[in-house]
Amino acid sequence: MSTGEPLVVGVDFGTLSGRAVVVRVRDGAELGSAVSEYRHGVIDRILPETGQGLPPDWALQVPSDYVDVLRIAVPEAIRAAGADPAGVIGIGTDFTACTMVPTTADGTPLCELPEFAGEPHAYVKLWRHHSAQPQADRINALARERGESWLPRYGGLISSEWEFAKALEVFEEAPGVYSRMRHWVEAADWIVWQLTGTYVRNACTAGYKGILQDGRYPGVGFLEALAPGFGSFVDDKLMHPLGALGAKAGSLSAQAAEWTGLPEGIAVAVGNVDAHVTAPAVQAVAPGQMVAIMGTSTCHVMNGAELREVPGMCGVVDGGIVAGQWGYEAGQSGVGDIFGWFVEHGVPASYVYDAQEAGISVHELLTRLAAAQEIGEHGLVALDWHSGNRSVLVDHELSGVVVGQTLATRAEDIYRALLEATAFGTRTIVETFERAGVPVTELIVAGGLVKNELLMQIYADVTNLPLSVAGSTQSPALGSAIHAAVAAGAHPDVPAAAAEMGSVRRAVYRPIAENVKAYDDLYAEYAALHDYFGRGANDVMHRLAARRRAAASVRKGQHR
Amino acid sequence: MSTGEPLVVGVDFGTLSGRAVVVRVRDGAELGSAVSEYRHGVIDRILPETGQGLPPDWALQVPSDYVDVLRIAVPEAIRAAGADPAGVIGIGTDFTACTMVPTTADGTPLCELPEFAGEPHAYVKLWRHHSAQPQADRINALARERGESWLPRYGGLISSEWEFAKALEVFEEAPGVYSRMRHWVEAADWIVWQLTGTYVRNACTAGYKGILQDGRYPGVGFLEALAPGFGSFVDDKLMHPLGALGAKAGSLSAQAAEWTGLPEGIAVAVGNVDAHVTAPAVQAVAPGQMVAIMGTSTCHVMNGAELREVPGMCGVVDGGIVAGQWGYEAGQSGVGDIFGWFVEHGVPASYVYDAQEAGISVHELLTRLAAAQEIGEHGLVALDWHSGNRSVLVDHELSGVVVGQTLATRAEDIYRALLEATAFGTRTIVETFERAGVPVTELIVAGGLVKNELLMQIYADVTNLPLSVAGSTQSPALGSAIHAAVAAGAHPDVPAAAAEMGSVRRAVYRPIAENVKAYDDLYAEYAALHDYFGRGANDVMHRLAARRRAAASVRKGQHR
Repeated sequence: MSTGEPLVVGVDFGTLSGRAVVVRVRDGAELGSAVSEYRHGVIDRILPETGQGLPPDWALQVPSDYVDVLRIAVPEAIRAAGADPAGVIGIGTDFTACTMVPTTADGTPLCELPEFAGEPHAYVKLWRHHSAQPQADRINALARERGESWLPRYGGLISSEWEFAKALEVFEEAPGVYSRMRHWVEAADWIVWQLTGTYVRNACTAGYKGILQDGRYPGVGFLEALAPGFGSFVDDKLMHPLGALGAKAGSLSAQAAEWTGLPEGIAVAVGNVDAHVTAPAVQAVAPGQMVAIMGTSTCHVMNGAELREVPGMCGVVDGGIVAGQWGYEAGQSGVGDIFGWFVEHGVPASYVYDAQEAGISVHELLTRLAAAQEIGEHGLVALDWHSGNRSVLVDHELSGVVVGQTLATRAEDIYRALLEATAFGTRTIVETFERAGVPVTELIVAGGLVKNELLMQIYADVTNLPLSVAGSTQSPALGSAIHAAVAAGAHPDVPAAAAEMGSVRRAVYRPIAENVKAYDDLYAEYAALHDYFGRGANDVMHRLAARRRAAASVRKGQHR
Repeated sequence: MSTGEPLVVGVDFGTLSGRAVVVRVRDGAELGSAVSEYRHGVIDRILPETGQGLPPDWALQVPSDYVDVLRIAVPEAIRAAGADPAGVIGIGTDFTACTMVPTTADGTPLCELPEFAGEPHAYVKLWRHHSAQPQADRINALARERGESWLPRYGGLISSEWEFAKALEVFEEAPGVYSRMRHWVEAADWIVWQLTGTYVRNACTAGYKGILQDGRYPGVGFLEALAPGFGSFVDDKLMHPLGALGAKAGSLSAQAAEWTGLPEGIAVAVGNVDAHVTAPAVQAVAPGQMVAIMGTSTCHVMNGAELREVPGMCGVVDGGIVAGQWGYEAGQSGVGDIFGWFVEHGVPASYVYDAQEAGISVHELLTRLAAAQEIGEHGLVALDWHSGNRSVLVDHELSGVVVGQTLATRAEDIYRALLEATAFGTRTIVETFERAGVPVTELIVAGGLVKNELLMQIYADVTNLPLSVAGSTQSPALGSAIHAAVAAGAHPDVPAAAAEMGSVRRAVYRPIAENVKAYDDLYAEYAALHDYFGRGANDVMHRLAARRRAAASVRKGQHR
């Protein structure tokens, strides 16, 4: 449907696919959308070019898959909307983060150079590439030792997922790639570069993932002490002019106009992160409104009126979500990923047959069976660390635990225990914020997991918070569209645009007093195991991870 | 093949079926065998007579299923052997223990009385009926408080599986059944009663499961203090003349001759326990030779020259295995049961297809995949307590744990971790014996799990002991046949009969130094978790079990 009214396009780049949405500037109505799966998906076992095996914890991507989203999903979304491309006045994008692209001076990804096609370090390191933990450990130890002022802004721990740890891994393990690399670029900015022909570094990832605080990155002395020769990293590869969120990064290039079918010269918004861009999409711009974007992983973003240092948060950045407020971020590395892993690798055939017979997914079948249980009836408690722990422990060598299995334990029992474990993980984050003086008054959930009503009620009961739900099923893309509208000058700023274009259903799930009480007890069990396995009482998970790596490298040696 | 030589029949009553074997007295040659599955199997969810649901931890059986083994398996074994029944000079039996039958004065099981058909407490309580844990806890607390001298003979803990805990449960929860019950009979003795028409209580279960030490049971004062009115239990329901192992309990009755097709009047050996009777079958009659009978669960039996009190052992009984030596018993409540549970409830369809395609079982497929791994490559450590812990913690409210799961964890990883966990459980037992001054020099494995070569090598590597393997695949039945031959007077005593009729292959698996070292490290992880979850540092498993029971009873209330 073409209304003649001004339109914007938001494009959300996720872990496995990119989604484009056509949105009306006046009221945020979503007129059409389309998805394009990444052809290479996540590369975590075999490098396709060479068939070379990757070590555990690696996760790479191929940048041309992102461009394919512009070429395929954007025109399809316009068609699906029945819109006239001429009515589109701006485009905005958001991306997973911290997802890093090593490039030449002109933005060519190093993996596209023939000499680096077989070099894993030349590829995009996806957010969940976790092998730079040793580098992160050294960054943290040195920063603590030197009393670096930026460390508390990240909850006291820099993640192996972020720019410096991943870059140091390249520096140390692939000096050839490091030396050829001119820019170490967030994928969020690389895609904007493809759209405009200009590299603008967005203020959000620079702050949250790039350790930019009070206008400064970690200094030369710190970096040189970390690894001789790494001292010039910021000046040589990282430092770049910044763009504020909602600002215009540039105009759509002729090349990108050809890819997308959109008018050349329209506004392109500064890059953004999928989680952060969701806050305006659900009108969560006030302090205390915690947005949980629940998909394969969960990101928590929230504005706060004041600067507090919250242990184990991912970061606090001035204007990191909305200008004029402190933007807080926390997260859980594995959520939907864990449920998906369990359904694929831990559920027997009979459930698959039953689900087929009932015409529902295995997830839905397990949810139905689990929903029929009393709280605690499964006799289990689990830790949701199958993909590590982002907040509040910031430790990607942690791993999953299930306690309490008996010969009577069934798949739906474990499934429910895993759902609950992720809710306990969120409660741990909420409580940590509150203890640090950053109150949380409402939980607003967006992302694919919103559709699981059992999961939502569990989250309300476990956190004892009312749960609001995103009005859109494609909130990040809507958030990007909001930024596009602001970049195009159609709304004065992001909060104003959010008020007109954002969408949320308030308090859809309310805590049930009896359940809250039952979960208080189970949460106490979770918390005890959390601290036992996560805070050094028993470092078994680190030792198991080290042994796993060592065994895998023995195997690799054998196969050579 | 009938040789005209004297033959004996051994009958082994297991958890799910009974097996009869026809054996030549001269050399132990097994001439034929047959199996009869119990029609009712293990009743652990629904009482068939009434459709009534059972609480968690219950496990019942129907005694007529045992008689069916005499009627079906014994004649079939004779036919399979091509033997003339007239050549059979004796029959011996062994049973799971502690498996208890409440009977009238003439041995009629109470569940066969019409008024008790719907009463769960009137049925056979199988060894793995675990709901009498509260009763066991009280027995232990009171015995400790009073300093009862028999307590250390059972490692300091009386099991919920045994005669007193199960009887006290009947006394307290089903007074009508208790008052109607004249004898509280081990199934091992009940079946001999069916064969001979005479009740003889065997010395083995009386000692190990009936707390008979130095000729005395727990006293009236103790029992009355435990529960008013229970003081006369021993005198009224339990006390009965004993028979020594290898002695003749009586002669085959006309009725039993009709059932079995064997000659009336032949010798029937005193009842015995499947684990204990295996020791002579594998010629393990010397101190330090630990026999592990590995099936759904594992029993460890070993002779020792001296009396030692080993913490958490199941018991030490003078002549409990072989006359003239102290018989030690320990055990693991879940072993093959755990592997079977995992294959049924935790392995996705693709493995079932792959196994079908390869023409092997899912167990074999998982074993092949697991065998290809380096030690520790799966990054996991598990606790093998899915069916509780018999030794050395003697706590059936403990439950299973898997630590270290990641999104890369696959079914074969968990399978291998479970295999290893049971080996660690055996090592814990071996080390506890050694610390108590009872050295273990050899591990002799019998039972269905012997056929898994990966499992056997893991046990050798984890325990750092040479592994001998039973020569027969039906060792308990062979052991029963050995006892039958002694009862019939064909051999002077059990050790002499074992030397002629027993069979073992020595040191089939030897520890591999490099693996021993790797497993030392993983065992340290197991031991730390064992003590954390099992020795009171974190009683989460008890609380989860209590919550599970409470939730199940809420559900039961709702359904009424």
